[in-house]
Amino acid sequence: MQGSVRDRGIGIFDSGVGGLTVLKEIRKLLPGEDLFYLGDTARVPYGNRSRDTIIKYSVQNTGFLIEQGIKLLVVACNTSSSVALQTLRHRFTDLPIIGVIEPGSEQAVRNTASRRIGVIGTRATVTSESYRTAINRFDKDIKVFQQACPLFVPFVEEGMHTSALARGMAEHYLAPLKRHGIDTVILGCTHYPALSPVIKKVMGSKVRLINSGQAVAAKAYEYLFSHDLLKNTGDTSHRPPAPGDMRFFVTDDPLQFKRIGRLLLSLDIDSNIHKVVLEDHEYA
Amino acid sequence: MQGSVRDRGIGIFDSGVGGLTVLKEIRKLLPGEDLFYLGDTARVPYGNRSRDTIIKYSVQNTGFLIEQGIKLLVVACNTSSSVALQTLRHRFTDLPIIGVIEPGSEQAVRNTASRRIGVIGTRATVTSESYRTAINRFDKDIKVFQQACPLFVPFVEEGMHTSALARGMAEHYLAPLKRHGIDTVILGCTHYPALSPVIKKVMGSKVRLINSGQAVAAKAYEYLFSHDLLKNTGDTSHRPPAPGDMRFFVTDDPLQFKRIGRLLLSLDIDSNIHKVVLEDHEYA
Repeated sequence: MQGSVRDRGIGIFDSGVGGLTVLKEIRKLLPGEDLFYLGDTARVPYGNRSRDTIIKYSVQNTGFLIEQGIKLLVVACNTSSSVALQTLRHRFTDLPIIGVIEPGSEQAVRNTASRRIGVIGTRATVTSESYRTAINRFDKDIKVFQQACPLFVPFVEEGMHTSALARGMAEHYLAPLKRHGIDTVILGCTHYPALSPVIKKVMGSKVRLINSGQAVAAKAYEYLFSHDLLKNTGDTSHRPPAPGDMRFFVTDDPLQFKRIGRLLLSLDIDSNIHKVVLEDHEYA
Repeated sequence: MQGSVRDRGIGIFDSGVGGLTVLKEIRKLLPGEDLFYLGDTARVPYGNRSRDTIIKYSVQNTGFLIEQGIKLLVVACNTSSSVALQTLRHRFTDLPIIGVIEPGSEQAVRNTASRRIGVIGTRATVTSESYRTAINRFDKDIKVFQQACPLFVPFVEEGMHTSALARGMAEHYLAPLKRHGIDTVILGCTHYPALSPVIKKVMGSKVRLINSGQAVAAKAYEYLFSHDLLKNTGDTSHRPPAPGDMRFFVTDDPLQFKRIGRLLLSLDIDSNIHKVVLEDHEYA
């Protein structure tokens, strides 16, 4: 029985395409695992929707991924992670679930010496205060400075994230943060790792950027290792594991997903994308 | 009977908030008319959706506005105008319907001396070729040069449309257009009038910008006047008409709508916004 659980995949869902940066980090750390990615592109963005709606969508997404056969779920969507994680853990008690907010917050808390952390994200993420709450749960005396950067996502999705204009945009948004003596910045949106080089230049080499995707991947590895759930554990041949499968599911036309996916992953994923309908499913 | 039709309002729908620039122009030209605006903010953007879905949404929107009591419908959404206008005219035969594509195209054709017209819009609008088709229906020998400017909408929605960065962005997108000797540019997206000053500076004073909203307002005036359907026509007092009512309906949380609406309209519309649900309605 345990053997068959090991052979299951890792499920990852996001409201859209941004979570692919999380998948990318998981793939690096766990190349032999099968990965199932669901992008709810028909209902993106979740940020402006009501609590109940976000929970309903998150439950549907989780149910769909369970049907694919998974041993671990990663909620790569910031909005779902802050609103729906508790409910998901209650409803799907047998399934280990990792969100994007806690792992990044924990890493930032461990890293900061000045005890002043910056958080950048979409307007919805910043307004939700979820990173501030998570950071202060680890250490209530750390000061958190937040900045919404609403144009960063469209810059990335248009492939303009390495342009001179992106540099100007980063300077515009980050100027207020630079005055606060922070030494750590959480990239609180799954699109932002693509802007890392530009953000680094603007913030300076002494400020460390925390990529939530990397922190999530480390948590996933740690969980699977400590529970003896890594795939191919029985293989004692010392050969590198065969690359796991990657399957992508979207709820709307895959065209945009392909275009932006190629940008974020530097991978051609066209042949593995499937369109699915979630509304008809009801998960108890 | 005719009297009561005169007293009805003008219905305007868009997938989101952009159509408010059309409403603004109608308000200027027809200040005494009652205006009902529906922004389908829960299902925006229409651009990536299938034909059938766009038609279904457009029919629901029209049905809802008819229930408010209207004598004229303006489809202020570029996507609905190119995909659903024919169906709407077939289904609602008694209702005069004006889209955003034809009036702007007609004005551009009348204006051009070089017989070379530029069209800027979202990626979906440009891909649909609807402006090119409409222009060449008026005059098949006119050359049309299109350019998608996907970052213009987020720039406007973030209130950054007068910034130095917006100027850089406009130069980036419009450089290819400037090489073609065009003398007329259609602002083929309802958000773009907010960027007119920047676009003018980049294109130069010899190029005329066509604001589709103004062209639509002119068409609406012309229709109501020629059919004797203007409100207060019976009033011979020569006083300016009392300002008509304006009511705004949205399908999602009104917060973003209020913020961007204030930007686009320079009007505080908070007290007149109502949230509605369209999915339950079925219109034959």
